[in-house]
Amino acid sequence: MAETKAPVAFIGLGAMGFGMATQLVKQGYSVTGFDVWPPTLERFQQAGGSTASTPAEAVQDKEYCVCMVATAQQAQEVLLEGANPAVPALAKGAALLLCSTVACGYVQQLAQQIKDSGRPDILLIDCPVSGGAIRAADGTLSIMAGAADEAIEKGRDLLQAMSDPEKLYIVNGGVGAGSNMKMCHQVLAANQILSANESMGFAAHLGLDLTETSKALIASEGWSWMLENRMPRMLHPEFQPVASAVTIILKDTSIITSEARRYGFPTPMTSSAEQGYFTGLGRGFGSDDDASLIRVYTEGKGKVGPVKGQAETKDAKLKLVINLLKGIHICAAAEALTFAHKVGLDLEQVYELCINAAGGSTMLKTFGGDMIKILHSEPPLVADGLAALAQDLHEAVDEAQKLKLPLFLGSQALNILRLVLQHKPKDRAEAPMALAVKVWAA
Amino acid sequence: MAETKAPVAFIGLGAMGFGMATQLVKQGYSVTGFDVWPPTLERFQQAGGSTASTPAEAVQDKEYCVCMVATAQQAQEVLLEGANPAVPALAKGAALLLCSTVACGYVQQLAQQIKDSGRPDILLIDCPVSGGAIRAADGTLSIMAGAADEAIEKGRDLLQAMSDPEKLYIVNGGVGAGSNMKMCHQVLAANQILSANESMGFAAHLGLDLTETSKALIASEGWSWMLENRMPRMLHPEFQPVASAVTIILKDTSIITSEARRYGFPTPMTSSAEQGYFTGLGRGFGSDDDASLIRVYTEGKGKVGPVKGQAETKDAKLKLVINLLKGIHICAAAEALTFAHKVGLDLEQVYELCINAAGGSTMLKTFGGDMIKILHSEPPLVADGLAALAQDLHEAVDEAQKLKLPLFLGSQALNILRLVLQHKPKDRAEAPMALAVKVWAA
Repeated sequence: MAETKAPVAFIGLGAMGFGMATQLVKQGYSVTGFDVWPPTLERFQQAGGSTASTPAEAVQDKEYCVCMVATAQQAQEVLLEGANPAVPALAKGAALLLCSTVACGYVQQLAQQIKDSGRPDILLIDCPVSGGAIRAADGTLSIMAGAADEAIEKGRDLLQAMSDPEKLYIVNGGVGAGSNMKMCHQVLAANQILSANESMGFAAHLGLDLTETSKALIASEGWSWMLENRMPRMLHPEFQPVASAVTIILKDTSIITSEARRYGFPTPMTSSAEQGYFTGLGRGFGSDDDASLIRVYTEGKGKVGPVKGQAETKDAKLKLVINLLKGIHICAAAEALTFAHKVGLDLEQVYELCINAAGGSTMLKTFGGDMIKILHSEPPLVADGLAALAQDLHEAVDEAQKLKLPLFLGSQALNILRLVLQHKPKDRAEAPMALAVKVWAA
Repeated sequence: MAETKAPVAFIGLGAMGFGMATQLVKQGYSVTGFDVWPPTLERFQQAGGSTASTPAEAVQDKEYCVCMVATAQQAQEVLLEGANPAVPALAKGAALLLCSTVACGYVQQLAQQIKDSGRPDILLIDCPVSGGAIRAADGTLSIMAGAADEAIEKGRDLLQAMSDPEKLYIVNGGVGAGSNMKMCHQVLAANQILSANESMGFAAHLGLDLTETSKALIASEGWSWMLENRMPRMLHPEFQPVASAVTIILKDTSIITSEARRYGFPTPMTSSAEQGYFTGLGRGFGSDDDASLIRVYTEGKGKVGPVKGQAETKDAKLKLVINLLKGIHICAAAEALTFAHKVGLDLEQVYELCINAAGGSTMLKTFGGDMIKILHSEPPLVADGLAALAQDLHEAVDEAQKLKLPLFLGSQALNILRLVLQHKPKDRAEAPMALAVKVWAA
C-alpha cells in the first residue's frame, strides 16, 4: 500500500503537527519531517517517519509539503526567508498545504511572494485545521481549505487523510478563504474557552461543587465543545496535561481582532476575551493550559472582604451559571456569523462547519440558523426570547457583582443584548433570540 | 461668630467626612461627630469638634445632621436600623443631609422609610459630593443636592459651607436626583481613573519615561481631572499616600452598572472599567490607592516573551498614548451623558457640573455640548472627526496588542466607535465627533 502514495514533507512537528504527520505515516505515506527541536525528530523516527535537518532537505523534489508551524512569522522563515527554505526546493507543480492558523492577509501575501520568487507553479492550499491534538493524531480534524481548483484536486488525498470524512470543507474564495473561515470559527473558540473558565470561576465563587457543576453544565444549554473539552484539565489540581497553552488561543484571538480592525469591524466579545487572555498572560500563565485561566477569576476568592450573594439553593446557583454561558454563547455566535458575513463567507457553510467542530455550542446550533436568516433579511423562525435571555443574564451579572469577581464576557454580553433591545424599544418582549446579530449588522 | 450657627451632627469621619466636619468647625459651627473608629473621634476633638458615642447621641435634639458614611448599608445602620440610630433622635423638622454616594433607588427608599417610621417632618437632602479629601477639607467640594424646596432652603447654609460657591448644584427632581447626578458624574470618574492607569501602563510598555510622559499627558487633549490628580501617587514607588482606595471607586462603579441594569441601559465603558477594578481587587490591591492599578497593566512587562512594537520615536509613542486617552474619554463622555439623558437629568447642568468637577476631561469639555445637541436631535457644531479618532485609537490598540498588555478601556472604546461607524457607512469621513452617543441612543 505504502508504495502507491507520494512522498510527503512535513514541516512543524509540534503538538498538532506531530499527530498529523504520524497519522500520515500510519496511513502508508512516506513522510519526511522537519522541526527546529531535535528531540521531536528522534521521536518522529521512532514513529516510523524520516527526518531532515533543514526545510529544503525535507521537501527536496517532493510534490507534497504540509506546513504546520505555529505562526505566520515561522511560516515565512521555513518557507521563504530562513536558512535553506522549503519553497525553492519543492518539485515543479508541488502542492504546498499551509495548515497553520494565520491571517487571511498573510496567506494571500505569501501566495504572491511565492509567485514573485519565480515559482508560480507551486499550488498553495490555505488549509487551517481545527480539533485539537487528539483528533490530529486520529486523522479526524476539521479542515477548511481555500485554493484554486487545481490545487484542491492535487491536495485532496492528503487533505482527506488528515480530516474526518464529513469535516473537510472546501471553502469558496481561493487562498485566504480558508483562513477567514478558521478565523470566524476561532471567534467561537476564543469566547468559549474563556467562557468555560468564567463559568467555572463563577461557580467556585457561588460555592458550588465544581465536579458536579461541570457535569450539569455539559448537560445544559450552556454546552460548548470547548467547555466539555477543557473540563478535565480545569478540574485537575495542576491543570494538567498542558494540551493547549494560553499563548496559542491568544495568538488566534489577536488574529481575529487585528483582522477585524483592518476591516473596521467591531468585535466586542472577542476583544473582551482578549483582555482576559492578556490578563492571564501578565499573571505568568502564558505557557499553562488555557483551562487554567479559571485562576484569573478565582484568585481573589475569600480575600476581598465579606461578600454575600442572593442565590441560596444549589439549583438557583446552577441556573445562574448556565444563564451566564447561554448569554455569552449567543453573543459569540452573533459575532462569529456577522464577521463571516462581513468577510464574504458562505454562512451556511460557516454554520455547518462550526457546529461540528471545536467552535460548537448549543446556542449556535439552536439559533445560528435564525441569525443567518436575519443577516439575509429573512424572518427568523423563533420570534422571541432575547429579552428573557437578557433578564436571565442580568441576574447572573448582578450576582457576580455581589460576589466581587470579574465577568469579562458575561458583562460584555449583557451590554450587547441591552444595546440590541435599546434599539428595539417598542416590542422588546417579541425580540427574537437571533436578533443579537443586529448590534453588528449595519 | 460661632454662637450664631446652629449645632450640627456629623456622622462618618472618614477621609472625606473628617475634612468636611473639620471645615465646618473652622467656619464656626458647633459640630458633634460620630464614627465607629475611636481614634478618629480623638483626632476630631483635637480639631475642635465634640464627639458622641452613638449616632443618636450625636444628633440628639439637633436640627442639622450630615451623614457621610461609605455605603448605603452603613447609612441604613446609623440612620435607622443599627443600635441607637440617628433618625428617631433628630429634632422636629431637622435637615438630614445624606452626602454618601448611594444609588438613587436607595435614597428614595430611605425617604419612604423615614416617613413610615413616624418622622415625616424630617427634611431629607440627597446631596452626594465630589472632589476628594483635599477639597473636602477646604470646603470647596462639588455638591449635587436633590430635595424638596423646603429642605433645600433649610440646608442651604450648610451646603454652602461645604462647597465651592460655584459648585453647589441644586438638581431638579427631588430626592434621588442628586444621587443620579453623582452617578452620571461617576461614569466619568470610573472610566478616567482607570484610563489614567491604562495610559501610563501603556506608556511603561512602550518604554517611555513615566515622569516626562505624565507631564505631556496632562498638557494634552488626553487630560482629565483624574489623570492629573492621580499622577503623583502613580509615580510614587509605593503608590502613596492612599488617598482613595480601589474599593471606593469600585463601589461607585458597581452602583452605576447595577442601576444601569435596573434601567435596562447598556454601560459598556463602565462595565469594562468594573472588570478592570475587579481584576485589581482579585490581585489583592483593594485597599491600595486606585493609582496603583497601573500594576494590572505592567505586571507582565518583560515576562511574556519577546515583543516588538511598531512606534519608534518618543513622539510617535507619546501620540499613541494620547490617542488612547482621547478615544476612551470620548466614549466615557458619551456614556455619561446618554445615561444622564436616560434618567431624566438636565443635560446642560450635568455638563456644567462635570467639566468643573473630578469628572472633567478635555474631550468632554470640547465635545460634550455637541453630544447634548445630538441627544436633543439638534445638529452638532463640529461636523466630523470621529472616523479619524477611531483610526488613531486603532493604532494605539494595535500597538498594545503587539506589546501584549490588556487595554480594558481602549479596546472597548474602539469597538464602540466601530459600532457607531458601522451604522453610518455612507459618510464615515463626515461622522461628527459627538456621534459616539449614537451607540447608546435608541
